[in-house]
Amino acid sequence: MRIDAVDFFYASMPDVTLEADGSQDALLVRVSAGGYVGWGECEASPLVSVAAFITPRSHGVCQPVEASVLGEELDGPDDIRRIASLVERNSMDLLQAAHTFSGIEIALWDLLGRAREQPVWQLLGYERAYSKTPYASILFGDTPADTYAHGVAAVARGFNAFKFGWGPFGTGTVAADADHLQAAREAIGSDRHLLVDAGQIFGADVDAAAERLGALEAASVMWLEEPFRASEFDAYAALAARATTVRLAGGEGAHEEAMARNLLKYGHVGFLQIDTGRIGGIAPAKRVADLAAQAGITFVNHTFTSHLALSASLQPFAGLADHRICEYPAEPKQLAVDITSNHLLPDADGEIHVPDAPGLGVEVDLDALAPYLRSIDISVDGETLYSSPQSGRVLLG
Amino acid sequence: MRIDAVDFFYASMPDVTLEADGSQDALLVRVSAGGYVGWGECEASPLVSVAAFITPRSHGVCQPVEASVLGEELDGPDDIRRIASLVERNSMDLLQAAHTFSGIEIALWDLLGRAREQPVWQLLGYERAYSKTPYASILFGDTPADTYAHGVAAVARGFNAFKFGWGPFGTGTVAADADHLQAAREAIGSDRHLLVDAGQIFGADVDAAAERLGALEAASVMWLEEPFRASEFDAYAALAARATTVRLAGGEGAHEEAMARNLLKYGHVGFLQIDTGRIGGIAPAKRVADLAAQAGITFVNHTFTSHLALSASLQPFAGLADHRICEYPAEPKQLAVDITSNHLLPDADGEIHVPDAPGLGVEVDLDALAPYLRSIDISVDGETLYSSPQSGRVLLG
Repeated sequence: MRIDAVDFFYASMPDVTLEADGSQDALLVRVSAGGYVGWGECEASPLVSVAAFITPRSHGVCQPVEASVLGEELDGPDDIRRIASLVERNSMDLLQAAHTFSGIEIALWDLLGRAREQPVWQLLGYERAYSKTPYASILFGDTPADTYAHGVAAVARGFNAFKFGWGPFGTGTVAADADHLQAAREAIGSDRHLLVDAGQIFGADVDAAAERLGALEAASVMWLEEPFRASEFDAYAALAARATTVRLAGGEGAHEEAMARNLLKYGHVGFLQIDTGRIGGIAPAKRVADLAAQAGITFVNHTFTSHLALSASLQPFAGLADHRICEYPAEPKQLAVDITSNHLLPDADGEIHVPDAPGLGVEVDLDALAPYLRSIDISVDGETLYSSPQSGRVLLG
Repeated sequence: MRIDAVDFFYASMPDVTLEADGSQDALLVRVSAGGYVGWGECEASPLVSVAAFITPRSHGVCQPVEASVLGEELDGPDDIRRIASLVERNSMDLLQAAHTFSGIEIALWDLLGRAREQPVWQLLGYERAYSKTPYASILFGDTPADTYAHGVAAVARGFNAFKFGWGPFGTGTVAADADHLQAAREAIGSDRHLLVDAGQIFGADVDAAAERLGALEAASVMWLEEPFRASEFDAYAALAARATTVRLAGGEGAHEEAMARNLLKYGHVGFLQIDTGRIGGIAPAKRVADLAAQAGITFVNHTFTSHLALSASLQPFAGLADHRICEYPAEPKQLAVDITSNHLLPDADGEIHVPDAPGLGVEVDLDALAPYLRSIDISVDGETLYSSPQSGRVLLG
């Protein structure tokens, strides 16, 4: 099969607010090859990621992503890895390329699975897919009472694990954070998992983060996520050494496999959270999952958007029985719900199942998406380089 | 002073080829505040970096760069650091933001220096600026005879240090590479510095790189640059441990200060090469230079474009007397020459001097630039978000 076309679909809510809620917009990618179609999703900043696909080249290793994709042969998983290597080389100096290619790579796996009538997790070498325990991501409230209320509402929805994050955490006093943590624990009861996401609030300030360890451990928090900026490995390691029961989590910012490896090796995290929509897609995420298993730490997906992104992010660790917990977009914007016509819903035990269906096993609903679609037009010297969504990038000749 | 406007100027050669020559296009940034103007330059992919400035926001920590810059107060170096922190936070999930902001940050320093009638290196706390020994960057030839000819031609131009890179190096046999290295050494004679740039050709393959150590050391190569991808710290450290006299160099890909720190700490490089047009500008590059000095390794600039970029890249280590060697664009395209009306030319001893003049001390020549300018138009839902170069982004109200 030859990759004939790559089309982007930029969708957003009518109003995109300053909330830390990544489900307010989406960039979907549709790849066509050999009469088949596959879908993927890029995480973050649709316009910039489209620009990275079609930008005029700057030099030999700063080419647009399309130069390494359109017209390439796609006959098996090795071709996906080969195309990824082309992008890595030809777009070496184009920072955004990793985010752009992530969505394309996911679509290539989906397409290949549909052509072979196999789920992606089988193409990755897994013999079966294990269920996962979803955790609900919740923002801390403005007050401990709000945090408590958020927690109680989430428990009522049947989840068994909860992650509170962002909001005021880390911005005020240690005592205020302790109150929020205690409220969260009280809301969910003593038997359910409690996770905390600090949203990089401490920068690289180990002492500021360490001051919260007592309250975190008193509330039996399983992981503290992203206390620091993504590449502050020294800070991660120093904090990990000062913790007793709580373990550190991170990795969502990894835009290449090596970043995730380095966070594990040098930052001593106990949970590696990988977004397939950023790290370059499913294949590098699978290699990170293999590494996590080998190192005895836990692989977790990072997903805050659609169930297309959710299925893509579950494939890399679908066959790892011991890596059970998974991020599940608990309160996404309606856009993220409407992107697909089917959804990965919790079963009676509250467990999530990776689809046992060709490709990613979720269907993009273009009709439902129509009201959300936004058009992009980019031209250089008056020549149109990109116009969406009606005309994508089609291989000519 | 309040930042009133940020304008981008995208310029390119009429034909941009697949050479590994980064001087084929440029993205200049002009910042206006308090009646003063400052100039900076972003490294790589102009269209994508412009898109990152004006993209619709995706959520609270995926905002366009402009959201953290336009309208901000600029009264001293602390404001530049404050604005950088805003960008880091508000554009956390926008990968390209670091490249976009780098050019803006450089322009802020230039503007501040012009307003205070001080060179940027003085604003950085240096009491004097030391001269630097420029090395000429040359591509390996197709054959050892070509490499020899390139070397002889460069010697005739008066340089005392030479870096050969890319081309066939690492793509064929060890013996072929040895022939090229010997030809390069013969061309420049035994007393001049010889450096080699592998252009990440070995990926993360330590053995493949190590096989070349004998030939590199036989040719008295001072540094082997970027044998591996930028974040492959383990590979760097493993190769460094196997080398006897040659030291490793890297860092040009660092798009944040922590990446450079990690390459030093975990990759054991002997030379840290920083591009101010990528790492976030002059302030983070200065902190890396301080760290290099403290660690006893050598800071070097990475510059392949204009003398605006060259002056910006020299400021961070201008006051470090022992860090003498500097990258100098030896054979840039005419565009890179025409960007500025004055240039940092070697003196009678072949040394380069950082300008002792306000700001960066180089003048952008908009008239000379006119034939190279390319217009960009970006619209979303039919609304123009960017149109250049006539209309930049001006603070309204």
